[in-house]
Amino acid sequence: MTAPRTIGIGLLGLGTVGQGVWKHLTEKRADLESRLGVRLDLRWAAVRDPRKRRAVRIPRARLTRDAAKVVDDPRVHVVCELIGGTGKARELTLRALRAGKVVVSANKALLCEHGPEILDAVRRHGGQFLFEASVAGGIPIIKAIREGLVANRFDLIVGILNGTCNHVLTRMGEDGLSFAEALREAQELGYAEADPSLDVDGIDAWHKASILAWLAHGKWPPRARTLVDGIRQVSPADIDFARRFGYALKHLAVIRRDFARNWMTVGVYPALVPSRDVLARVSGVNNGITLRGDVVGATTLAGRGAGGDATASAVIGDIVDAIGALTGGAGHGISAEALRARERLGRGVRMGSLDEIVSPFYLRLSLLDRAGVSEGVYRVFTKHQVSIARVIQYEHPNQGRGTVTLSTYPVSERRMAAVVRELRRLRTVLGDPVVLRIFNPES
Amino acid sequence: MTAPRTIGIGLLGLGTVGQGVWKHLTEKRADLESRLGVRLDLRWAAVRDPRKRRAVRIPRARLTRDAAKVVDDPRVHVVCELIGGTGKARELTLRALRAGKVVVSANKALLCEHGPEILDAVRRHGGQFLFEASVAGGIPIIKAIREGLVANRFDLIVGILNGTCNHVLTRMGEDGLSFAEALREAQELGYAEADPSLDVDGIDAWHKASILAWLAHGKWPPRARTLVDGIRQVSPADIDFARRFGYALKHLAVIRRDFARNWMTVGVYPALVPSRDVLARVSGVNNGITLRGDVVGATTLAGRGAGGDATASAVIGDIVDAIGALTGGAGHGISAEALRARERLGRGVRMGSLDEIVSPFYLRLSLLDRAGVSEGVYRVFTKHQVSIARVIQYEHPNQGRGTVTLSTYPVSERRMAAVVRELRRLRTVLGDPVVLRIFNPES
Repeated sequence: MTAPRTIGIGLLGLGTVGQGVWKHLTEKRADLESRLGVRLDLRWAAVRDPRKRRAVRIPRARLTRDAAKVVDDPRVHVVCELIGGTGKARELTLRALRAGKVVVSANKALLCEHGPEILDAVRRHGGQFLFEASVAGGIPIIKAIREGLVANRFDLIVGILNGTCNHVLTRMGEDGLSFAEALREAQELGYAEADPSLDVDGIDAWHKASILAWLAHGKWPPRARTLVDGIRQVSPADIDFARRFGYALKHLAVIRRDFARNWMTVGVYPALVPSRDVLARVSGVNNGITLRGDVVGATTLAGRGAGGDATASAVIGDIVDAIGALTGGAGHGISAEALRARERLGRGVRMGSLDEIVSPFYLRLSLLDRAGVSEGVYRVFTKHQVSIARVIQYEHPNQGRGTVTLSTYPVSERRMAAVVRELRRLRTVLGDPVVLRIFNPES
Repeated sequence: MTAPRTIGIGLLGLGTVGQGVWKHLTEKRADLESRLGVRLDLRWAAVRDPRKRRAVRIPRARLTRDAAKVVDDPRVHVVCELIGGTGKARELTLRALRAGKVVVSANKALLCEHGPEILDAVRRHGGQFLFEASVAGGIPIIKAIREGLVANRFDLIVGILNGTCNHVLTRMGEDGLSFAEALREAQELGYAEADPSLDVDGIDAWHKASILAWLAHGKWPPRARTLVDGIRQVSPADIDFARRFGYALKHLAVIRRDFARNWMTVGVYPALVPSRDVLARVSGVNNGITLRGDVVGATTLAGRGAGGDATASAVIGDIVDAIGALTGGAGHGISAEALRARERLGRGVRMGSLDEIVSPFYLRLSLLDRAGVSEGVYRVFTKHQVSIARVIQYEHPNQGRGTVTLSTYPVSERRMAAVVRELRRLRTVLGDPVVLRIFNPES
């Protein structure tokens, strides 16, 4: 027998995820080495400040400020890009791929915004790009789409992809916190950044939805043709009403595909989810994704969507796959071969018109409390042929105003937009109507 | 470029799963061939009666009565054993493995009862054995444990593994059907066999739990040291009471592992699951499994646990993995290499004492409706130092009897058995007490 091959691993970035990877790879090294039949060499962690105190103890000689040196080290076979952002991370990723190396990435923004460039580098130079950690933290959703459920085409992928939004909505629903209070709490707990807009405005979920859409359907959805909405407009009252109607309020990413007409639509928005749905039970910082395949039916994966350890679990899973590929395997990452197959998958797929997407809606209106006011409101719905399914109406004593919450039967985005435009113009409607979609898994 | 290699596939058995595999492999062939860079040759389906009418149309020349011929055909590289049972299926599986072939299997009974023999054949002859379809139908749970979550050790694996039990319990809970009525319905819908005991007595779930225990911990749990209970004792009243206590009633498989003391316990039984738990929402014939890993935390996978198409999805996933291995990959199946690693994993693991497992319990007692009767009952609990958490007590007017349902604080199996023995001896307790465990995910 020959001596086992040594696989060199280099980390770029040593934040919570990087430290998690270092710690768990070190702890599980004997087991992983015996499974894989190789020796693992955790060669480098590139950091900004080697002297900074960290929770994980790493020999000083393994730390370097020079990320390019890590990428260029011929004894580093697997580069883990855990810096984030689209500047230095992009440069280093391309540099590693152009050297034909394996890159394991947790960087959804980079893949989403520079996907074609990155994948082109894979194609030209024969490396691999693995990105399980970029979507839904520790949940092996990329692997499920790419391998376990490979027999399937997915006409619906729907998921809770942003843990911060889910935590905020959960806290609002459980304890009646306002959006601002719940967000502040999430920031204090370290779940949300000081500038939370990436999370609460839906951008992070959109990045992840784009990656899933590309993986499942071979096409990057252009941002301009995607519905992206956050949760700033949601109040505890909406969650409470949703519950009364039999729903939970979740921030969803919804990817629909019509195979007969060869289009897809991608939307990211807060929505009412039937409370009997498994996703309705995915709470706190957890993520959950339901894949509806033509062979397997609906399969749901749920678990921790963020956090250093959960994401580290995904990174290590990718490293193990990468080593399988490096030691002679076909590889499950995104190799040149896999890319060509994915391109064929996306051939001719068009983006569906957002205007034509049909769903039931939920609306909350503040109304002047005067005789005949509701009538005027209902007249708008009738005029646009939008049928109302359920109404809850009540008055705020002594405030001279009332609230109407209602749900509609399924109606197109275009038609609902027309209704809302007209409602806004009514003098008796106070402020902006709150408009939320109702997610119907059957449709 | 050389011509792509042709991979021959032979099916043994052409029931609902076999037909699903044939149909979907045929439909998706072009896509799969392009992904894999090989040509697929669906060479044979071995059947008992080639002339039988089937839902899927298969050329007569592809059908054969001679299963051994399929296994021996040198142009068959992947053998899919979909016959079931442990007789002919065992012989053919061993024959294929001894020829160094890849076997893809949906046969949990075979793997559970003859695991060591099958795996020994893999070890000696260099073939592979893949079995995603054997546990939880289309849910890629085997892959998640083996690959996606490879960075983790699992101290808890808990799942709803039998779709028939789950369907019966769901129907009892939703519509108040009795066990017998719900079972009859399941049989009429084709979810349960004419002899339903494999399902409703927990045997099928035990087979699957054993496979998961072995996969995660490298040890086959002996049946005699496993708690195996079915759902025959459950009545709609229990489900109703459970709901009032804030629980759903599910048939669970529970695999616990203590890494410090190196033991594991395996139990299969009906249990009350907190209604906020994701598993509480897994209804009908669906399956769901929560894996608690030391790195990733709790991850849940849920979806269709049975049925021809869902299981076919898993079989095709395995075939694709097998082809990856055959075309030079390290392979994700169970190869000789993987087996050695798994043996190391199981070294020194002991089965924990069932008696010492601690959980809260639920009991339902029928009592003679006489003064002082409840007192006598509570005295038994006090004597054995079992604390009661909640009680619901009511009388059946004019029937001379009452019902008491109660939940306890956590107590060992041994102690609860002593309580139940003593309760049975009380003349005022009518019939057998119904005793159910309360599953506590936190413990």
